[in-house]
Amino acid sequence: MERLCLPEIFNFAAGPAVMPVTVLAQAQRELLSWSGSGISMLETPFTGDAFKAVLKQTRDNLRSLLNIPENYHILFMHGGASAQFSLVPLNLLGAADRADYIETGYWSRKTMREASRYCNVNVAASSSNTSFDRMPDTWRLDPGAAYCHITSNETANGVQFYDIPDTNDLPLVADMTSDFLSKPIDIQRYGLIYAGAQKNIGPAGLTIVIIRDDLLGRAHTTTPAVFNYQTQAEAGSMLNTPLTFAIYLTGLIFHWIAGMGGVEAMARNSEQRSARLYQAIDASDGFYHCSIQPAYRSHMNVCFTLDNNALTPFFLNSAAKEGLINLKGHPMVGGVRASLYNAMPDTGVTALINFMHHFVEKHHHYV
Amino acid sequence: MERLCLPEIFNFAAGPAVMPVTVLAQAQRELLSWSGSGISMLETPFTGDAFKAVLKQTRDNLRSLLNIPENYHILFMHGGASAQFSLVPLNLLGAADRADYIETGYWSRKTMREASRYCNVNVAASSSNTSFDRMPDTWRLDPGAAYCHITSNETANGVQFYDIPDTNDLPLVADMTSDFLSKPIDIQRYGLIYAGAQKNIGPAGLTIVIIRDDLLGRAHTTTPAVFNYQTQAEAGSMLNTPLTFAIYLTGLIFHWIAGMGGVEAMARNSEQRSARLYQAIDASDGFYHCSIQPAYRSHMNVCFTLDNNALTPFFLNSAAKEGLINLKGHPMVGGVRASLYNAMPDTGVTALINFMHHFVEKHHHYV
Repeated sequence: MERLCLPEIFNFAAGPAVMPVTVLAQAQRELLSWSGSGISMLETPFTGDAFKAVLKQTRDNLRSLLNIPENYHILFMHGGASAQFSLVPLNLLGAADRADYIETGYWSRKTMREASRYCNVNVAASSSNTSFDRMPDTWRLDPGAAYCHITSNETANGVQFYDIPDTNDLPLVADMTSDFLSKPIDIQRYGLIYAGAQKNIGPAGLTIVIIRDDLLGRAHTTTPAVFNYQTQAEAGSMLNTPLTFAIYLTGLIFHWIAGMGGVEAMARNSEQRSARLYQAIDASDGFYHCSIQPAYRSHMNVCFTLDNNALTPFFLNSAAKEGLINLKGHPMVGGVRASLYNAMPDTGVTALINFMHHFVEKHHHYV
Repeated sequence: MERLCLPEIFNFAAGPAVMPVTVLAQAQRELLSWSGSGISMLETPFTGDAFKAVLKQTRDNLRSLLNIPENYHILFMHGGASAQFSLVPLNLLGAADRADYIETGYWSRKTMREASRYCNVNVAASSSNTSFDRMPDTWRLDPGAAYCHITSNETANGVQFYDIPDTNDLPLVADMTSDFLSKPIDIQRYGLIYAGAQKNIGPAGLTIVIIRDDLLGRAHTTTPAVFNYQTQAEAGSMLNTPLTFAIYLTGLIFHWIAGMGGVEAMARNSEQRSARLYQAIDASDGFYHCSIQPAYRSHMNVCFTLDNNALTPFFLNSAAKEGLINLKGHPMVGGVRASLYNAMPDTGVTALINFMHHFVEKHHHYV
């Protein structure tokens, strides 16, 4: 299935990001009449049996994709991951006044800044002294902490956790926004996982929360009812009107992942795609440079710089002319970022690598 | 423009609700490649110029549609109107410990229940003693209140404000979820207006907040940053990833409203459509009955009962077989509810009235 455009476009955006074209095509076909109903999923009431079945199927499929045990609730929430930066402390602190946070880059820092409005933030580990070029492996957990928070993949910095220390009885909370559904997860190691949808899940706005049932019921009294994990768990994520269309699209994407071989296949694909790209960077004799230590390089967001930084705008413009778009690095980091989410075809990575080779050939004399 | 279905379907759902078919058709056409970009609006990064232009245009068009003065901010928020039940007190109470609420039906009661978790709720007026068959016209405002909250249209009960008493210096806050964009609004009478999108605006999840600038900066310290009116106003609703696709669709709907003659035309249409339907109810010799006082009957949600209530399920099933769907009343109210939002074609109301006539002819001997 191809889009009606020449040349083919490959979208390396960090989020909202590329979606499977077969999913978009199905959504397109049924946009005016979903499942023979004569109305769009956008127009379908959330209280009716049709949407309830979609919601249940989507939840069941996620449970199956990630082997989520029965003592974990799956919530479909509003607000995006940034809302969870506040909602995690509001819902989980209980009587505690502190929480552990692992500082690993731009997004964990943002999370910590927001959390510090609700509690004492103990920096249990940090890689700031090496400019976030790796994940910290020595953690000093606070025995009085309510939980320990990690950002499993730092989208802006391009660094990812592959080996997470054990937090024992301390509930491990993970912002998995940018690597959710890219690989299997040992759910039982976590107390809570949250993920904004706009990378591997679906449309921006939808947020998935997976929470172990013993962590419910600790919410601060000022937590808005619709953002209280317990009330939403009890209401099956229907306390207020859910993001109906986003949940429907997410269901199509879960189905696509299952059909492609599940998260195990997604892990193989993203590992291979990112390895090829990192290899092209490392083999460029310093023309391109990735500052992240090899063992911690993200399979989702490949961040690199050009040795001659003055060439970066030209690199980005030339790439865009070849249909390789949204490659600009995060504003706080600069350089180039190629996000390789599940829906990025291998041919996109091949096209990018070819472009990078040609760009070196044309410009290596400027270095 | 017609959908590919026979017979034609008319969707009377209270929300998510019918959308203009030309808008859906445009969204369908460009779902895989928006505006020649080669990518879907669902895949378009929110930080890029393309989406920023969509957001600005959508905001500007709303300002123009409703003549919103420059000292009002327009925010595109996450969470739906139910989130605002908490976010209004969190953002507006400031040092005050109380607020006025006007009790007019199911939704205002829900709002008040949530607000009472944050402040003393003064019931400044109520129509509960007449079973919410009208809007209360005598209000006893509390001089210590931070604001006065109304629900401009009660979706479940089918009762609507047409004449709102003056609150003078007390900021008037209105949940306009179910009649927003159905008529002109004298914005300057309000301190804050909010509306969930899933009636006349766009997809569920998106929430529009219109706030006078002097009301910013009063948020309680525990207000999540992404739900703080001031921080979102300063960030142009881009503090976190906005609901990009919902905002795009909303923009198409604003454009459609403007092309149809603006909110003045929407007001004429909804007045005429609802008048025809109420007239059919009132002319049925008691077969159908609307309990709402004529001066307060909603132009958006026409609620009625069958004198022989045992016939209601049969009425609903028979209507659905004729393509008149989602007519079931709110579970807390029962009976029949025909929601006549902007996108409901006049032919839908004609079809419903014809069906109601035929139903009387067939079943009047059972009354």
